[in-house]
Amino acid sequence: NLENFFDEAYPADIADFLMLLDSDEKEYILKNKANISLIINIISYLDYENQNIVAKLMNEEKLSTILSRIYVDDAVDFLGSMPVGKVKKILNLMKEQKASELQSLLGYDYESAGGLMTTEYLAFYNDMTADMVLQKLRKISPGAEMIYYIYVISRKKELLGVLSVRQLLAAQPDENLKDLMTENVIKVGINLDQEEVAHVFAKYDLLAVPVVNKRNQLMGIITVDDAIDVIEDEATEDIYKMAATGDIHGGLLAAVKKRIPWLLILLVGDLLSGSVIKNFEESLQVVVALAFFIPVLMDMGGNVGTQSLTVVVRGLATGELHFANFWRHLWQEVKVGFVMAVILGSMLSLIAFFWQGNPLLGLIVGGSMFMTLLTAVTAGTSIPFIMEAFGADPAVAAGPFITTLIDISGLFIYFTMATILMEKLI
Amino acid sequence: NLENFFDEAYPADIADFLMLLDSDEKEYILKNKANISLIINIISYLDYENQNIVAKLMNEEKLSTILSRIYVDDAVDFLGSMPVGKVKKILNLMKEQKASELQSLLGYDYESAGGLMTTEYLAFYNDMTADMVLQKLRKISPGAEMIYYIYVISRKKELLGVLSVRQLLAAQPDENLKDLMTENVIKVGINLDQEEVAHVFAKYDLLAVPVVNKRNQLMGIITVDDAIDVIEDEATEDIYKMAATGDIHGGLLAAVKKRIPWLLILLVGDLLSGSVIKNFEESLQVVVALAFFIPVLMDMGGNVGTQSLTVVVRGLATGELHFANFWRHLWQEVKVGFVMAVILGSMLSLIAFFWQGNPLLGLIVGGSMFMTLLTAVTAGTSIPFIMEAFGADPAVAAGPFITTLIDISGLFIYFTMATILMEKLI
Ligand SMILES: [Mg+2]
Ligand SMILES: [Mg+2]
Ligand SMILES: [Mg+2]
Ligand SMILES: [Mg+2]
Ligand SMILES: [Mg+2]
Ligand SMILES: [Mg+2]
Ligand SMILES: [Mg+2]
Ligand SMILES: [Mg+2]
Ligand SMILES: [Mg+2]
Ligand SMILES: [Mg+2]
Ligand SMILES: [Mg+2]
Ligand SMILES: [Mg+2]
Ligand SMILES: [Mg+2]
Repeated sequence: NLENFFDEAYPADIADFLMLLDSDEKEYILKNKANISLIINIISYLDYENQNIVAKLMNEEKLSTILSRIYVDDAVDFLGSMPVGKVKKILNLMKEQKASELQSLLGYDYESAGGLMTTEYLAFYNDMTADMVLQKLRKISPGAEMIYYIYVISRKKELLGVLSVRQLLAAQPDENLKDLMTENVIKVGINLDQEEVAHVFAKYDLLAVPVVNKRNQLMGIITVDDAIDVIEDEATEDIYKMAATGDIHGGLLAAVKKRIPWLLILLVGDLLSGSVIKNFEESLQVVVALAFFIPVLMDMGGNVGTQSLTVVVRGLATGELHFANFWRHLWQEVKVGFVMAVILGSMLSLIAFFWQGNPLLGLIVGGSMFMTLLTAVTAGTSIPFIMEAFGADPAVAAGPFITTLIDISGLFIYFTMATILMEKLI
Repeated sequence: NLENFFDEAYPADIADFLMLLDSDEKEYILKNKANISLIINIISYLDYENQNIVAKLMNEEKLSTILSRIYVDDAVDFLGSMPVGKVKKILNLMKEQKASELQSLLGYDYESAGGLMTTEYLAFYNDMTADMVLQKLRKISPGAEMIYYIYVISRKKELLGVLSVRQLLAAQPDENLKDLMTENVIKVGINLDQEEVAHVFAKYDLLAVPVVNKRNQLMGIITVDDAIDVIEDEATEDIYKMAATGDIHGGLLAAVKKRIPWLLILLVGDLLSGSVIKNFEESLQVVVALAFFIPVLMDMGGNVGTQSLTVVVRGLATGELHFANFWRHLWQEVKVGFVMAVILGSMLSLIAFFWQGNPLLGLIVGGSMFMTLLTAVTAGTSIPFIMEAFGADPAVAAGPFITTLIDISGLFIYFTMATILMEKLI
């Protein structure tokens, strides 16, 4: 029974349920079964696309009511899913103070600290006493998203320190905040990229982090639940980039647009691989068996290169790897690659020998496998570090690109060796 | 200056600094420059490998002091990095109650709710009043990791409800906890996999989650900072699996062992690709130009299949995709794949025609590209769903495996078409 479910389930579960429906069912339910207080509860758990659907189905009046009753950071996200014209109309219907607050928050880059922060936080002047603050806390509405940290500011709104509710409860009633607070506050600049913001949470184990402008004035706070979303989104972004793909939102053409540019670049690379083979056409004509080993040489090089590369890309993203580690890490990868190249090269050598009954072919195939794998670990390890050094996103270098690069060099090594030893091969 | 840095920096930064050092430098500093209170501050920020190094450099006496002065969940992790013999000796040196608590926590699977939880939480009986609890909170040592949620239990330790400090501060002093608490508590079972635990945090936006046994008795709590680590680790695990690789810890042979089994399986797949080519040896002998397009057919199929697959693997991991979406999602991918197959197939057709001056070759290359790409999106989308249905981890299906599978079918399509049209091709 739908009414029961809507009454009793957690908002996050109702949101999940709605997002899994077909668009027809979704529209029907949103129009006929979901009242405004349900929407208020679940709106922040819906993703961009589904917030957009809700926005389309409701008039500006209703939307302004919803927006005035949710946390400001969630309201900003919701507004972000609507067309500019509609946003203007809605803001006109809201109380002026709230509207201008939302307006200014909308100005920050969606993927920056400013785009993540809420302006509902607790800040008190440094000359207030513990007891005064506790009295205020008792009366405060549950509007402040995070009442577990209390920020201490100057009359100019400069961030001076931080205090946990725990410290406040343990304090003497007449102690001043300036004597209770920790001055060494971990904070982020308002333009910091969301990825860096998430790192701050992961590293320092915080529940919230204050956001300051260039003059160190407290502009808002970011809460840990939003940092978790960023961590998941950033991992998704990297995984997509590593597979040269994009998300599935926004319809057919949008999906094609996110994928096909990469494929066109890779197509050029593959045609270069093909032209390497064409260059050695004559050798291939004489020894057709050379073609049988094209797949294994191409693929294993790519696979080993991707292994090395993936460790670096992820290590740079989580902070486990760092420029300072480059040489040490490269050396480690070359050692690992050497052992794997010896094992796989000699195995393939024997397989080629027994399959084709030609020891020299075995030597050529095994030898070029060995060299290709050493190239693969070296390129796979170095390229993402180099990209990071030049300020490019190392995740973009990944999988398909490194594979195509190694394909070209592997085929070149293979056919060059074969051609040089040609006479003896026939 | 090292002393200054150790005095003034955040523990997380000191830990990061230490982890980036060479083993010699690390050992020197840990032996000569780091006193026991520094270790107490930073130990929980060190990773497994570096905790192990610290454990090796210190005697049981010192280690037991450190362990008794950090949070129990961090203590369990630290003990987890030491050999069993050493753990026993250390526990013998500690106070009995603490030792037996650590002992029982060590019994839980490292990657389960029990392995993540701490036993330092706040729980009060349901007949206590708000004021009684506030008085206790004022006196409590900062030992409890999370004082922002207060759990309400029965005399039998059964979990009855939860209450935030915010609710407590706003309550009348003589109100009973049972009238203040929320009864509908989000909780996790003690054996739940850490990945599911992390999903609970991400979904419901919690700061901590209570852990219960089968009889609903409160056994511990998990805090959000530890959930963040799990989210990062699980994303890393999936990224590694998708590239058929493993982490870099544990030395040369361990790294080789994590990578080479996958490579051996892939080697077999690549040899199958090679034997497809061998089966069509005669066609290849007659039209060597067929070989020039092997790289592009192999690679593009793999690339497109990996794109589709990556979206599904990540979608299943974050919960964005679900079995219920299978047919809808497959249909969407087939449409995207069709558009891309038309574009890339006809481009390649023209390229092959102009490059080799043979319209029929153009048709064969373009046609098999088209069919290979449709196979690729279908396989790439379905296989991870099927694996999930059979309880296997879909991330393992990824990248290299799907690529090899598509290689084989792509080459088969290509050479079959070419052979059928052979007479006309020459
Ligand atoms: Mg936002
Ligand atoms: Mg952390
Ligand atoms: Mg928020
Ligand atoms: Mg949120
Ligand atoms: Mg980003
Ligand atoms: Mg990134
Ligand atoms: Mg643990
Ligand atoms: Mg969330
Ligand atoms: Mg913890
Ligand atoms: Mg922790
Ligand atoms: Mg796992
Ligand atoms: Mg997993
Ligand atoms: Mg390939």
